Amino acid sequence: MEEKSEVRGQKSEVRGQKSEVSSQRSEVRTGSDSDRVSDANNGQTHLPASKKIYTESNGLRVPFREISLSPSREMDGTLVENEPVRVYDTSGPWTDPQFKGDVRYGLPPHRRDWIIARGDVEEVQINAFMRDVQSDAFTRDAGTVLRAKPGHCVTQMHYARRGIITPEMEFVAMRENLGRSSDRGLLARSERSDRSSLNHQHRGESFGAAIPEFVTPEFVRDEVARGRAIIPNNINHPESEPMIIGRNFLVKINANIGNSAVASSIEEEVEKMRWATLWGADTVMDLSTGKNIHETREWIIRNSPVPIGTVPIYQALEKVNGKAEELTWKIYRDTLIEQAEQGVDYFTIHAGVRLPYIPLTAKRTTGIVSRGGSIMAKWCLAHHEESFLYTRFREICEIMRTYDVSFSLGDGLRPGSIADANDEAQFAELDTLGELTKIAWEMDCQTMIEGPGHVPMHLIKENMDKQLEVCGEAPFYTLGPLTTDIAPGYDHITSGIGAAMIGWFGTAMLCYVTPKEHLGLPNKQDVKEGVITYKLAAHAADLAKGHPGAQYRDNALSKARFEFRWEDQFNLGLDPEKAKEFHDETLPAEGAKLAHFCSMCGPHFCSMKITQDVREYAEKQGVEAEKALAVGMSEKAAEFKAAGAEIYHRPDGAASGDHH
Amino acid sequence: MEEKSEVRGQKSEVRGQKSEVSSQRSEVRTGSDSDRVSDANNGQTHLPASKKIYTESNGLRVPFREISLSPSREMDGTLVENEPVRVYDTSGPWTDPQFKGDVRYGLPPHRRDWIIARGDVEEVQINAFMRDVQSDAFTRDAGTVLRAKPGHCVTQMHYARRGIITPEMEFVAMRENLGRSSDRGLLARSERSDRSSLNHQHRGESFGAAIPEFVTPEFVRDEVARGRAIIPNNINHPESEPMIIGRNFLVKINANIGNSAVASSIEEEVEKMRWATLWGADTVMDLSTGKNIHETREWIIRNSPVPIGTVPIYQALEKVNGKAEELTWKIYRDTLIEQAEQGVDYFTIHAGVRLPYIPLTAKRTTGIVSRGGSIMAKWCLAHHEESFLYTRFREICEIMRTYDVSFSLGDGLRPGSIADANDEAQFAELDTLGELTKIAWEMDCQTMIEGPGHVPMHLIKENMDKQLEVCGEAPFYTLGPLTTDIAPGYDHITSGIGAAMIGWFGTAMLCYVTPKEHLGLPNKQDVKEGVITYKLAAHAADLAKGHPGAQYRDNALSKARFEFRWEDQFNLGLDPEKAKEFHDETLPAEGAKLAHFCSMCGPHFCSMKITQDVREYAEKQGVEAEKALAVGMSEKAAEFKAAGAEIYHRPDGAASGDHH
Repeated sequence: MEEKSEVRGQKSEVRGQKSEVSSQRSEVRTGSDSDRVSDANNGQTHLPASKKIYTESNGLRVPFREISLSPSREMDGTLVENEPVRVYDTSGPWTDPQFKGDVRYGLPPHRRDWIIARGDVEEVQINAFMRDVQSDAFTRDAGTVLRAKPGHCVTQMHYARRGIITPEMEFVAMRENLGRSSDRGLLARSERSDRSSLNHQHRGESFGAAIPEFVTPEFVRDEVARGRAIIPNNINHPESEPMIIGRNFLVKINANIGNSAVASSIEEEVEKMRWATLWGADTVMDLSTGKNIHETREWIIRNSPVPIGTVPIYQALEKVNGKAEELTWKIYRDTLIEQAEQGVDYFTIHAGVRLPYIPLTAKRTTGIVSRGGSIMAKWCLAHHEESFLYTRFREICEIMRTYDVSFSLGDGLRPGSIADANDEAQFAELDTLGELTKIAWEMDCQTMIEGPGHVPMHLIKENMDKQLEVCGEAPFYTLGPLTTDIAPGYDHITSGIGAAMIGWFGTAMLCYVTPKEHLGLPNKQDVKEGVITYKLAAHAADLAKGHPGAQYRDNALSKARFEFRWEDQFNLGLDPEKAKEFHDETLPAEGAKLAHFCSMCGPHFCSMKITQDVREYAEKQGVEAEKALAVGMSEKAAEFKAAGAEIYHRPDGAASGDHH
Repeated sequence: MEEKSEVRGQKSEVRGQKSEVSSQRSEVRTGSDSDRVSDANNGQTHLPASKKIYTESNGLRVPFREISLSPSREMDGTLVENEPVRVYDTSGPWTDPQFKGDVRYGLPPHRRDWIIARGDVEEVQINAFMRDVQSDAFTRDAGTVLRAKPGHCVTQMHYARRGIITPEMEFVAMRENLGRSSDRGLLARSERSDRSSLNHQHRGESFGAAIPEFVTPEFVRDEVARGRAIIPNNINHPESEPMIIGRNFLVKINANIGNSAVASSIEEEVEKMRWATLWGADTVMDLSTGKNIHETREWIIRNSPVPIGTVPIYQALEKVNGKAEELTWKIYRDTLIEQAEQGVDYFTIHAGVRLPYIPLTAKRTTGIVSRGGSIMAKWCLAHHEESFLYTRFREICEIMRTYDVSFSLGDGLRPGSIADANDEAQFAELDTLGELTKIAWEMDCQTMIEGPGHVPMHLIKENMDKQLEVCGEAPFYTLGPLTTDIAPGYDHITSGIGAAMIGWFGTAMLCYVTPKEHLGLPNKQDVKEGVITYKLAAHAADLAKGHPGAQYRDNALSKARFEFRWEDQFNLGLDPEKAKEFHDETLPAEGAKLAHFCSMCGPHFCSMKITQDVREYAEKQGVEAEKALAVGMSEKAAEFKAAGAEIYHRPDGAASGDHH
């Protein structure tokens, strides 16, 4: 793998040219793709009937999970093979049986050579203030880290605006296409027929997303250049597999982990990160607030195949022993640099919590519920001074562009209850986030915007519409929103409703909520429950947006369900283990998983079995049925004409009596 | 209770007049309401800090659950009382400590005297074909049942159209108002301030529901008369507490229970019914298909405080040993009468599955997934004949109006997968359901319409719009819909998303889906999970519709949350036990439930604590803050004007530099 990376590194120098050249090349390359399939593996970190595969193209190896299916049995007993189903895979090398990893050594830095090859970074000594907190386990080579050479900007947005297609952009293009090598690729046929049968583009409501049939590297570059999408990947997190956040791509989800002063350990948090990405988390935020913040983060980053986000103000506050009023720009800036050097991929920065907005929250039902927001509010009021996050924003941008850390502009004044949704404080802050987005873009910094929170359904769309307008289409990244306050213990569901809806409306990434929200720290089981809920919400949004790759999996699962291929139904689902466990609770015998009925109806009553009979009948009597259909339809039409005017309200005597 | 009923029975004769008289009376009565509060009770079937209360008016006793709260502690330590919160209660006498019930004897028939007093029913011998299946436990007095006198119709729609306000209508009016005795009642003040602060009526999207500030009996009568709402209550189910299903009322939910040939017993099903109604099920459907269908149903009905629905074709099929083609009109008709005499409140009847539509399903991904639909499809094809449910529809209406069984016109051709959503088969059937609704209304039969199923988000609204149009605004009753197929084991969530949305769009009742959907029969835990998920979805819909009574509970819970009244937060939620259990997993000590922080952030980091500080600061510096605000706002406005034209796309150099 390391060797491969070096070759890759050389190639990417060539790629560091204008996009026209690169784009042509990529078209040629995509024509000659080949899939390299790893050995089958049912190891403990892998899902059943799944194997890790890579689509390779010009040295890039893009990972997927492939679910193998059993054959369908026709009426006459003939077996017909079913193509395996390829799905997006966020679990990284941990689920590759070829990879012999160990959390003590971290993942291989596969992106490092791409980064070096661009010739705009330098290796520097780690900052002095970091030495004393540096973890033993991960003291990197001679204590050096990467940063941009003086006067350089190393953000993906910077390259994109200069027409450069980076390996990261090519990688995400292949990833978004689920490994299809072109729009005539493996899955294209079935998808096209799905689309024509459902005709997504022409029915139902659509909200301005423009998802291409096939994602090209040039499309990725263009979206990043416009600021409509970001590829969060710090040059000091070369272990990550590039992914993209934007509303013209698959909807992504984030899982929050992190210990607090009262609970949890480093090992647990690393395990939660691997667990969350096994089930599909696209990014992970480390929200640790207790002891060992630096070391916990180091372990998480070195082992994470997905981008890591943080809220740096938490650690800065720790450095002043929790006294918000003692925070200074210097402490905060040093914290940003410390975390940027470690490899954090995006920072939540609550720079929109301005002094004048704080009194707007005093009459709220739940005041300020964002931790970062309330810390800054306290600081502003203590000093009666504008927030340094706001006044020093350009200096922050300088740091972000030096490491390619993406902004996640925090919604410190988000509503914490239905009563506070869409209020003046919230939207005043959003206006400021829009203003800051423009400054960040001016400095080529990748930027997304955080959104609420608690919002009843009828006020959700207003959030999306305002965000798109005010923030110039920068990606929106929302927490839920929760659509009611009355279900503590079920907030993954109250928020999953809002998340699916706002994802449909255009939100690019959904921050998960676990069942423990408002009540306690999520354990492993809660993390899984939160991730699965948000995967299904994101997928529901992809379906509603008409994403060309989305419905393929639904169709494969429904076909398996209809044909009583029980194991396939389990394995195609988001949580095969739970599906199987639920099935086995009522019908545990192995034979039952081959049965053409299930416990809901019993052998005599299965509607699916009856439908198979119906199909057989329908086939035999095809011609007659077609005739009946024709008669039925014209009859129905005539009735409607006759009854037309009376369709509303008391239709006494309006219906015709001729069908008895 | 029995005595009271008799008094009631006499009064209702007076009430059997024209609505003008009755309506005047009810206004007088509502002014003199009094609450009779039962003794506090924490019995095993009751929820914590809750007591059963009744609002009495003119002999009607409408049950509610009242949740008591602890006082708020002000900054200076002063304790301020919090009003108890009253919520809708579906659990019936089982949670009344005064009631000493036993499932072997059933609930008291409190509605019987209202029914008798109308003078339009007669007591008749139970039908001969029922004798041999009659349960020992519930052989009713001399084996008699009630039915309409010859030539009479006993439906609530019939009375409503004749201007009669029945006790049932008064009961549901009081119930929908959550016991407020008028629009100046107990809860009205806080609700009004909620509404003005959120201004529900003027923001966000609304879809034509017209929910009054205060529900009057006359409003109920009018909605029932128009067919926009139904009050399902069979004259042979006098144990039930009347409730209403219509889009201008609180959104209701249904829980399905019932044993199958392979699992479950009568005791378990009765227990599931009580369990489901404890957690908030507004109606329960008994979908039993195995042995002892009649006896299981008898036990459920006699003990149920909520309306019971069934799908009679299941039992009819049992009578012909599962051979659909051997079904006859006579067997089906006898089954309807048998169940109507037992007291079933609504029947799912798949009369829209017409012969000509069946071939439309042959090319589907998942064919016909409705059990009832596929049984009828098989019958139609076997005989190559139009469905007897369709051809005999007026005869069915005759039975329905004799006992006041409501129609739930089944969607036998609903889509069983995303791929089949909103297809020709589905909408052809819906057209027929609209046609049948008109016939049912012509015969004064109460009618609702069942809806899908599996539908991606962007196609949900089309279902609602078409249903309203085609079925003349008859209440819609949907199963979910599931918004994706890929999450077996989580279908309560995939469908909760669709349910909340379609509830907002106007669906009157949501049929729950449990985590076991597609996999097995729900056990007690699954029933609870399904009910809670659907209660929150229904409540989210009520909020989005701007229901005047909905947000009160969210506000009370959020206030408790913000003030660290942990026990109140648990108790105001839909599942107090789970909330407390989750909290205690991280911070088990009793003291922690009084702590002003929680496990998510730890003592130094609590954003809510910081906000309390912010409020204190804000109060001290009130005047200055207001000034700062004014400055901030004008500054912001100026910036926006300056930057205006550049807000979209690459805003290089557009932002002004004056805020550093």
